[in-house]
Amino acid sequence: MVAKSGRVLLAYSGGLDTSCILAWLIEQGYEVYAFMADVGQEEDFVAAEKKALGIGAKKFFLEDLRKEFITELIYPAIQANCIYENVYLLGTSLARPVIARGMIAVADREGCDYVSHGCTGKGNDQVRFELAFYGLKPDIKVIAPWRIPEFYNRFAGRQALIEYAGKNNIPVAQTAAKPWSTDENLFHISYEAGILEDPNTTPPPDMWKLTTAPEDAPQQPQRITVEFAKGLPVRVVVPDEDKEYTDSVEIFLALNSLARKHGIGRIDIVENRFIGVKSRGCYESPGATILRAAHVDLEGLTLDRNVRALRDQFITVELSRILYNGHFFTPEREFITSAIPASQRTVNGVVKLKLYKGNVVIEGRTSNEGLYDERQSSMDELGGFEPTDTTGFIAIESIRIKKWAQANIRKGQAGVSPRDVYGSRV
Amino acid sequence: MVAKSGRVLLAYSGGLDTSCILAWLIEQGYEVYAFMADVGQEEDFVAAEKKALGIGAKKFFLEDLRKEFITELIYPAIQANCIYENVYLLGTSLARPVIARGMIAVADREGCDYVSHGCTGKGNDQVRFELAFYGLKPDIKVIAPWRIPEFYNRFAGRQALIEYAGKNNIPVAQTAAKPWSTDENLFHISYEAGILEDPNTTPPPDMWKLTTAPEDAPQQPQRITVEFAKGLPVRVVVPDEDKEYTDSVEIFLALNSLARKHGIGRIDIVENRFIGVKSRGCYESPGATILRAAHVDLEGLTLDRNVRALRDQFITVELSRILYNGHFFTPEREFITSAIPASQRTVNGVVKLKLYKGNVVIEGRTSNEGLYDERQSSMDELGGFEPTDTTGFIAIESIRIKKWAQANIRKGQAGVSPRDVYGSRV
Amino acid sequence: MVAKSGRVLLAYSGGLDTSCILAWLIEQGYEVYAFMADVGQEEDFVAAEKKALGIGAKKFFLEDLRKEFITELIYPAIQANCIYENVYLLGTSLARPVIARGMIAVADREGCDYVSHGCTGKGNDQVRFELAFYGLKPDIKVIAPWRIPEFYNRFAGRQALIEYAGKNNIPVAQTAAKPWSTDENLFHISYEAGILEDPNTTPPPDMWKLTTAPEDAPQQPQRITVEFAKGLPVRVVVPDEDKEYTDSVEIFLALNSLARKHGIGRIDIVENRFIGVKSRGCYESPGATILRAAHVDLEGLTLDRNVRALRDQFITVELSRILYNGHFFTPEREFITSAIPASQRTVNGVVKLKLYKGNVVIEGRTSNEGLYDERQSSMDELGGFEPTDTTGFIAIESIRIKKWAQANIRKGQAGVSPRDVYGSRV
Amino acid sequence: MVAKSGRVLLAYSGGLDTSCILAWLIEQGYEVYAFMADVGQEEDFVAAEKKALGIGAKKFFLEDLRKEFITELIYPAIQANCIYENVYLLGTSLARPVIARGMIAVADREGCDYVSHGCTGKGNDQVRFELAFYGLKPDIKVIAPWRIPEFYNRFAGRQALIEYAGKNNIPVAQTAAKPWSTDENLFHISYEAGILEDPNTTPPPDMWKLTTAPEDAPQQPQRITVEFAKGLPVRVVVPDEDKEYTDSVEIFLALNSLARKHGIGRIDIVENRFIGVKSRGCYESPGATILRAAHVDLEGLTLDRNVRALRDQFITVELSRILYNGHFFTPEREFITSAIPASQRTVNGVVKLKLYKGNVVIEGRTSNEGLYDERQSSMDELGGFEPTDTTGFIAIESIRIKKWAQANIRKGQAGVSPRDVYGSRV
Repeated sequence: MVAKSGRVLLAYSGGLDTSCILAWLIEQGYEVYAFMADVGQEEDFVAAEKKALGIGAKKFFLEDLRKEFITELIYPAIQANCIYENVYLLGTSLARPVIARGMIAVADREGCDYVSHGCTGKGNDQVRFELAFYGLKPDIKVIAPWRIPEFYNRFAGRQALIEYAGKNNIPVAQTAAKPWSTDENLFHISYEAGILEDPNTTPPPDMWKLTTAPEDAPQQPQRITVEFAKGLPVRVVVPDEDKEYTDSVEIFLALNSLARKHGIGRIDIVENRFIGVKSRGCYESPGATILRAAHVDLEGLTLDRNVRALRDQFITVELSRILYNGHFFTPEREFITSAIPASQRTVNGVVKLKLYKGNVVIEGRTSNEGLYDERQSSMDELGGFEPTDTTGFIAIESIRIKKWAQANIRKGQAGVSPRDVYGSRV
Repeated sequence: MVAKSGRVLLAYSGGLDTSCILAWLIEQGYEVYAFMADVGQEEDFVAAEKKALGIGAKKFFLEDLRKEFITELIYPAIQANCIYENVYLLGTSLARPVIARGMIAVADREGCDYVSHGCTGKGNDQVRFELAFYGLKPDIKVIAPWRIPEFYNRFAGRQALIEYAGKNNIPVAQTAAKPWSTDENLFHISYEAGILEDPNTTPPPDMWKLTTAPEDAPQQPQRITVEFAKGLPVRVVVPDEDKEYTDSVEIFLALNSLARKHGIGRIDIVENRFIGVKSRGCYESPGATILRAAHVDLEGLTLDRNVRALRDQFITVELSRILYNGHFFTPEREFITSAIPASQRTVNGVVKLKLYKGNVVIEGRTSNEGLYDERQSSMDELGGFEPTDTTGFIAIESIRIKKWAQANIRKGQAGVSPRDVYGSRV
Repeated sequence: MVAKSGRVLLAYSGGLDTSCILAWLIEQGYEVYAFMADVGQEEDFVAAEKKALGIGAKKFFLEDLRKEFITELIYPAIQANCIYENVYLLGTSLARPVIARGMIAVADREGCDYVSHGCTGKGNDQVRFELAFYGLKPDIKVIAPWRIPEFYNRFAGRQALIEYAGKNNIPVAQTAAKPWSTDENLFHISYEAGILEDPNTTPPPDMWKLTTAPEDAPQQPQRITVEFAKGLPVRVVVPDEDKEYTDSVEIFLALNSLARKHGIGRIDIVENRFIGVKSRGCYESPGATILRAAHVDLEGLTLDRNVRALRDQFITVELSRILYNGHFFTPEREFITSAIPASQRTVNGVVKLKLYKGNVVIEGRTSNEGLYDERQSSMDELGGFEPTDTTGFIAIESIRIKKWAQANIRKGQAGVSPRDVYGSRV
Repeated sequence: MVAKSGRVLLAYSGGLDTSCILAWLIEQGYEVYAFMADVGQEEDFVAAEKKALGIGAKKFFLEDLRKEFITELIYPAIQANCIYENVYLLGTSLARPVIARGMIAVADREGCDYVSHGCTGKGNDQVRFELAFYGLKPDIKVIAPWRIPEFYNRFAGRQALIEYAGKNNIPVAQTAAKPWSTDENLFHISYEAGILEDPNTTPPPDMWKLTTAPEDAPQQPQRITVEFAKGLPVRVVVPDEDKEYTDSVEIFLALNSLARKHGIGRIDIVENRFIGVKSRGCYESPGATILRAAHVDLEGLTLDRNVRALRDQFITVELSRILYNGHFFTPEREFITSAIPASQRTVNGVVKLKLYKGNVVIEGRTSNEGLYDERQSSMDELGGFEPTDTTGFIAIESIRIKKWAQANIRKGQAGVSPRDVYGSRV
């Protein structure tokens, strides 16, 4: 085998896989720099640096990307009510673009020829990372060991990795590996693989890491308010703790803390990966679950009906898919997100929430936007409204429907009966 | 004033409004038949019949529409995951088509010249009823007193109605009117108007009628399973009660009962009415909330990704809007629902659920459809999967993205940075 | 009858209808100002002014709105490829917002209490005008005589108008009225009503006013080029006339002239009006037909595939409907158009066209955008492309499809055969 | 090299590429059967059979798929108005599913272990064929020589193929290869590659094979009528030839013949291939161009507005993409096409057309559906229509818009001016 050469920037996690990859890349002949992104995960970065350098990394880079993760990725997703397949709030998907961008910035600055990562060959993350790399630096070269036969055939199974670690001075944590994999950041934690691959296995209670179980959450509800400006959270008030948060990062962290305490944000789903394989995942997205509920609610009060409907059908759906599939640095993402501001201009106001044992309960909302008019919507007074106008409205709305009904009747169609045409009948 | 003539079928509720309308129509010269639909609301139908006949109705018709409400309206909406503006499960909207169809059937059979209802002139229900009437019988004539100036000017306020009732032998319930209006059926109950018109007023705890408050719900979670065939619930098992339900109506009623006990299905929203007015509504949809969660979950396991995405974007959104706006007996509803069966062919399986204090927790699911493949999705084995295929997939997926990135770089565009283009920046 | 009072700004056309409305409004007691917009229609504005003042208008306002019509309405519609129901280029719809805005500006400045127009009660234009008025000045009052019973009952038929004109010193053109109605501006002319109401009547050859019949157009094709920058036409070159146009208004007028000469832009359709009535219309949109063809073509070369698909499905469809229905001054239009610029950033280049007897033939196109790559798309060389990558791509794309086919086969489903499921079979 | 073994069914065209592939497969050790589909292309099938057997194919199969191509693929695409990227009528895409199905049927019956084709590694057809193979028979194995390095490296260029042909008794046509590639069937012919790879090169006049140039088409227009039942053409009348066609295949062939004579159906585009590469293609789709124009027109008269709009946005767009990308035998195609029948139930009637030098001119249409009502749409009479109803309609439609305008005004927003928000301004 001819020795490879060149400088590789490796996305390093501190774990067994990327430690072995680090050693293996060096063994192949590469010079390796290790890269870690701080996106809020619970991690001993000092130990990780020491470990990477101990294995043989020439340099170690730690980038604190928490603020841009919140303000550039998470908050726009909140503005657009992003959600994948009705349920998943996209926590892993949202972190990938900032990590990839941080990596490409270092690779550029440090003159790296390659970037490398430890993602498996069946998942979404390899796609998200690599499409992001190419969208930022189209000529970058990527080394994905778990898709290189000489690597994955050699390390088929955890035992092979452990043995390799032993031979390469890679410290292996003494704790038994948990029977699932996780990905954590300040937005969420994911659990997949291992025992979770049977979609009928209920996750064991001790799997959930970020949130208290609803059963163990406080018996007393807690009230908070969240204020939005242009669809972005700008103030969280927690009266019973006498706290108020206005900094964008602190707001998110405070909501996270409240939601964790009250058991908010757990889900368990089977989702469809970009590569077309179904996959079971469990997630905790505490603060984001509160934010989404509050934002959706405030849009009821402050967003025009037609804008809301168009935004739901186009932006929410498309941006969620774009994020999930790792198409962040693409023209379509640029296009879709360009319409967000016009959808959020009026989303200003305050939402009252009750947090209680897994529930986010909306208790009221206010706004100065003036799109809601108590008098006008009142059933008890006319409010500048002429009821006869509605007669005209219904008359016009029924023109088309009457014509169709007449045609059906003339043709003896049973078409008007839901019995014949409604979905469940067939 | 010339006396009117002809036979009117009045949608009668037994309450003050429609009782006064009944008397007023007679006063105008019409012969009036009273119609009540049993769609599962809590009501003393015997007393209502007596009351209507006492006021002067020539005939009284009570139609039990519960079964068709569940099987023809509710279940297809479950199949399509219908939801309006992300939150509202459409309980009132779903009942209107069966009630209108029941009324038109009686009007036809009994030779009525008119149908009449007591809906206000600002709401959705007048539109839903009348468009349904016209879609079924385009030449029917509708009398909507709350949109007739001589009626609404005469009865401007509850007091005028009470006085009129007094003069017309209409018994008025002694209980003080609640400071909101409700519409109830076996799917849900709605609360609106009155004190709820201030969207920042938290509903008083005693308003909620159908469900236990989460705070008062049992301390012990309860487990159930729901089985679906072609997207329709066909079996509910409640192990700790040793119960099993397979009849379509019984399934729904059993889920309703379980959800009520566990405080499941309350919402509080500001929604956009068809006529363009924003309106605050509170709803309890107990059983439907469980069914929707279970159905959405099972689709993760059993529905193709692309079908799901297309169905979400087209059928779910459009059918929900069609239902909300009262466009049930229309060509577009016929068109949209014609695609439901093809979307539900594979939605077969069983979902395990935990009910606890307002939460519907998914604990697992199974299916024989075979679209989920543990080996294939496993991160721990290759499962007939060539990791190198993904390399090709990513290479092809990146062609377009690389070209775009190269063009941006050549033009010195900052377009690739999310900082510049992401929504929140503007 | 009590005399009305207040100042009315009337959209005046110079024709019989609005002349009679002018006289009638004065008769009712109003002070009337007449307003005309020059949007490029063929009209003797001087004669119209004289006529209006002769009938009794206190003031006359002529606003030249041609430039804003082209640059603010027409060009964005070209950028978005707007088209209604696959065929209609929206010529009348596009003019209404600029006319309404011009009128509201005069009404504001001149202290008018009312605006008035001569649109019929069944058409789209009344809706377009009035929704635009309300979107610009929500408290403006509108007088729509053709929807006021005392007006339309009195003037039921052209003869009544002619007689009224005679009594009110309103000159009536000697020429017989054409058996159809028209609306003209520099974008197009429309024909409807009269003999065209039978949708099977072929329009008489002498109806068409703007364009030469293809049969009578030149035997020699003519070549031109159109250059676009960010999706807007910025240069038209006509080599055989040795002409070049770069001014935005001149470009449009030049294309109009070329298209008229070559018989380009006639259509004949049945369309669906906003009020739900089907209507037959014939249109000539000469220059716009060339521009649309050229713009659509250039997007093939310069617009990303995914952006194009999303834009087609969302912006093109929704903006066309918004324009047609007169929802220009609305939040949804603001929202939808906010995404146009991001879709047109790369639409830069030149299209070669041949004009010949009704045909706009694309003969080639160039661009410096670099999204098209001859080497890469070449079937004759590899072009930096690994054919084996496609093997991986197809393998991944087929995962989901194979799973579905396997499930079908196991279940003995005939579902995979198009014979059973394809549309035409039912 | 170890000899391969097993039986291969090769999609054989009779041309140089697949002849060499046939010889090469035999050389590799396979037993090869040759398959040809008659989808209406101009071809000497007898000569092709002789050639295939001469090269060494063990068997030769010719399947006449013309009828199913027309009735199962083309007609449903007409019903759904399928079109890709606004312009391309999908002629090649439509043929692939019937060819693939024919091949799989033979492969099944004849016990073939493999199927093989001669598609290049950069195009759409490889994807269309292979995804169809897998959707019909998920365990079939595919040999795609142009993606196998030992094949494409050996045959890099036409000269290598010619030399190989010489050594293997493969007759090479004496005519010089045309500087482009074509794919022909009875729906269309495509031209791509070679000199067409420069998108600014105007195709030479002698390239176009199916249609007369508009310049050379008859000076006299020709009139025909096309009758549709449920959106399918059921009768074509050509009065000046005294001809009438009612057989589904004859109808299509007759329209093809008429369109070819009148120079109808040429296009020249740059399109986006599924693999993300832009590609220039020229197409002639004569009969289909007439049919599409006629079908779209008749829908104006006979299809409900809302059904049409939903169908355009969902079915037309999605089915076109599905067809283009080769996703025919997939769950999403099954889903989407299941909604076609409900959209075409009322599309019954006759369209009058004039064919003239490239133009398909609509001259009128009739239907008994009764959705068009001359009296109701008439501008000259009331037609059972109350103009005052429209006043109510506009009043209700403006509620939302006025509220928004009031809010803008109160906030001093310039948002209502198109100057600030319309696309072209940025």
